[in-house]
Amino acid sequence: MKLIEVKDIRDNIGEEVRIKGWVKNYRKGSSKLRFVIFRDGSGIVQAVAFKPEMGEDKFEKVKQITIESSLEIIGIPTKHPKKEDVYEFQLTDLNIINIADEYPIGKKEHGVDFLLSNRHLWLRSPSQNAALKIRHTVYHAISEYLNENGFYRFDSPILTPNASEGTTTLFEVPYFDIGPAFLSQSGQLYLEAGIMSLGKVYDFGPVFRAEKSKTRKHLTEFWMMDAEAAFVEHEENMDIQEELIRFVIRKVIERNKKELELLKRDVEQLKKADAHFIRMTHREVIKMLKDKGIDIDYHDDFGAAEEEMITEDFDVPVFVEKWPKEIKSFYMKRDKEDPDLVLGADLIAPEGFGEIIGGSQREDDHEILLNRIKREGYDLKDYQWFLDLRKYGSVPHSGFGIGLERLIQWISGIKHIREVIPFPRMINRINP
Amino acid sequence: MKLIEVKDIRDNIGEEVRIKGWVKNYRKGSSKLRFVIFRDGSGIVQAVAFKPEMGEDKFEKVKQITIESSLEIIGIPTKHPKKEDVYEFQLTDLNIINIADEYPIGKKEHGVDFLLSNRHLWLRSPSQNAALKIRHTVYHAISEYLNENGFYRFDSPILTPNASEGTTTLFEVPYFDIGPAFLSQSGQLYLEAGIMSLGKVYDFGPVFRAEKSKTRKHLTEFWMMDAEAAFVEHEENMDIQEELIRFVIRKVIERNKKELELLKRDVEQLKKADAHFIRMTHREVIKMLKDKGIDIDYHDDFGAAEEEMITEDFDVPVFVEKWPKEIKSFYMKRDKEDPDLVLGADLIAPEGFGEIIGGSQREDDHEILLNRIKREGYDLKDYQWFLDLRKYGSVPHSGFGIGLERLIQWISGIKHIREVIPFPRMINRINP
Repeated sequence: MKLIEVKDIRDNIGEEVRIKGWVKNYRKGSSKLRFVIFRDGSGIVQAVAFKPEMGEDKFEKVKQITIESSLEIIGIPTKHPKKEDVYEFQLTDLNIINIADEYPIGKKEHGVDFLLSNRHLWLRSPSQNAALKIRHTVYHAISEYLNENGFYRFDSPILTPNASEGTTTLFEVPYFDIGPAFLSQSGQLYLEAGIMSLGKVYDFGPVFRAEKSKTRKHLTEFWMMDAEAAFVEHEENMDIQEELIRFVIRKVIERNKKELELLKRDVEQLKKADAHFIRMTHREVIKMLKDKGIDIDYHDDFGAAEEEMITEDFDVPVFVEKWPKEIKSFYMKRDKEDPDLVLGADLIAPEGFGEIIGGSQREDDHEILLNRIKREGYDLKDYQWFLDLRKYGSVPHSGFGIGLERLIQWISGIKHIREVIPFPRMINRINP
Repeated sequence: MKLIEVKDIRDNIGEEVRIKGWVKNYRKGSSKLRFVIFRDGSGIVQAVAFKPEMGEDKFEKVKQITIESSLEIIGIPTKHPKKEDVYEFQLTDLNIINIADEYPIGKKEHGVDFLLSNRHLWLRSPSQNAALKIRHTVYHAISEYLNENGFYRFDSPILTPNASEGTTTLFEVPYFDIGPAFLSQSGQLYLEAGIMSLGKVYDFGPVFRAEKSKTRKHLTEFWMMDAEAAFVEHEENMDIQEELIRFVIRKVIERNKKELELLKRDVEQLKKADAHFIRMTHREVIKMLKDKGIDIDYHDDFGAAEEEMITEDFDVPVFVEKWPKEIKSFYMKRDKEDPDLVLGADLIAPEGFGEIIGGSQREDDHEILLNRIKREGYDLKDYQWFLDLRKYGSVPHSGFGIGLERLIQWISGIKHIREVIPFPRMINRINP
């Protein structure tokens, strides 16, 4: 007898098949009737057990099952008598693989701490399952876009040597006799070496921030995609980001219809974001915020509240570009037209989801970069190799970094970042 | 004028175009003739500068260039007069972007330490460029195979809590007020939770081993792909691995012809590996080694020398399966036919490249696993969540882990592991 998955039910109508999976839930219809909500990795289906059809012995087995028990169900897929595109499964028999103990999740509302302590079980909930399927799509859509556009994957290291930039948010790791190493916060500097060999490169891996923030947008361990391209300047850098994000949106809408529905994501709103992104300078944004009555200065950065306000009038993400040099990193290239500004751009997602990308054109002049490192008071020997890149065939280049979880939050509409990564790590949480 | 990449030259014969990139090398033909070996991320081409064609002023610019200078070359792609599938570039003009200082690599033979200290520049060497392009293909071929076969990406955490298994090869990270965390060596245990939600899952990320080994096969930070599947048992687990590895071999042969050629990889030998893999039990292998005159016992593990010997008579990888329980992990399922053996299998690559995969069916019985954890003397509270997976809908399941760099070494034929990762980390090396 054919072994199929839940997703293949529609292709096996009327044929006796078997499926392996778990009991999501069950209910009694009558003394002769039981409904089993059955799931596997591919989907959920309602299985119907009707005693006169199954016979007494086999129906007895149905009565033994508990929530989250593992089974092999045997029976005949049918179309739902009334609902379009809904299928059922008429049980003829079942094999019990494991009867689950009383399942701790789902009987009542649980606190977040209980759910996080039981993350290994909570993962099975339909909303968590849906979030992780969307994560799968977002991850691969990003890779697909980059691979198709000539970028090479270039895995930057996680263990990095002493960087003289502030170490307050760095995790420290004793490294043999060498001394402390630090967990990477971004592979950007390494990617800048990679482009000189491969032209366009990206990394996509975990990064770490020992930040004491406890918000719905912060994790201590999260995934970041950094991309870097030779001969790409500021405007084109934004073009690439815009195309990439719109590509990802389309792929999720195409591949995760069910999951978006289950999460009650407003897909029409999401579709509206697949249009030309807004581009405003930092100065224009400050002016807009002032006009909205916010007390803010032309040299200020934005907090979460301001980020929400920046996009509230738009359906698409907003690039905030050309920032005051004091509030951005030393490696960003200055704007020719106004040397007090840098050619950086942050991309703010609509619907209050905040920053999802940070990027910039990089300083490619050896002398200017050298002086800037000195002026910041950094130790030159830490940056010697990075300066070398400006000494041997320097080229104009730009790049950007996407926070994977932030992007998934926006696309899936999930409010808390802890639900878009399998095992979230936060300031007070490293278990299980 | 059209801006193209080196790889597009064949499609632009006879048309004046421009290309941005770097000077790999140059040589003087005569007082009127210069050859510039020019590269970008996509390939290498010889550009020909002929004074009577270019004119005096433009030819002067050619004379200024140095190795690794960055240029925009302007000219006309032509077919090589004699060689098939070889193209040249007749310079009409060039724009100098940056004249490189005297390039430190390439004038003479360099020691390994010098090259590693200059890894940010060494990456540009043709062999290093080729190795990283093959890495790109191997990484994505693995993902492609898994995605097409119903596996979901499931990123397991890097920061993990105190594990009671030996901590001698673990990197320790102080984690806020919680105490020490450890850098992951494998996501397997987490993936076992993932399959109960998603059916089949994999992770693919950096793992860490604070091992004091200084060999050509060891890194302290390397990339690992762990896959895990519900309802898959030992034999099928090996089938999946075999299919996956053969898929990867075909993709590299298909996509990296030039790189394999440059690295002088014997592609015919590689093609031979795309056939049925050998499967031998640990006992059979020990007997074979004894017959070869090796002093080894039926309860011994293999070292590098034995691994080389195991595959020396075969063109394909060899699965060594059914290991004595004492030399394998507590979570491996016992063989029904001989409870002293576990249903684990290691895959050994041919041509002396050693182990590339370790995998097994996992113990799915709660009582057996509980007792085994107790007998090992591990702290039960560290494994409570892992035991839960056997309490709530346990199912037969199996998985395996591929060492990415080991696999790339074999496929590319590169002898030292440090050359198949952008910035290698070893016991004595964390810079740059």
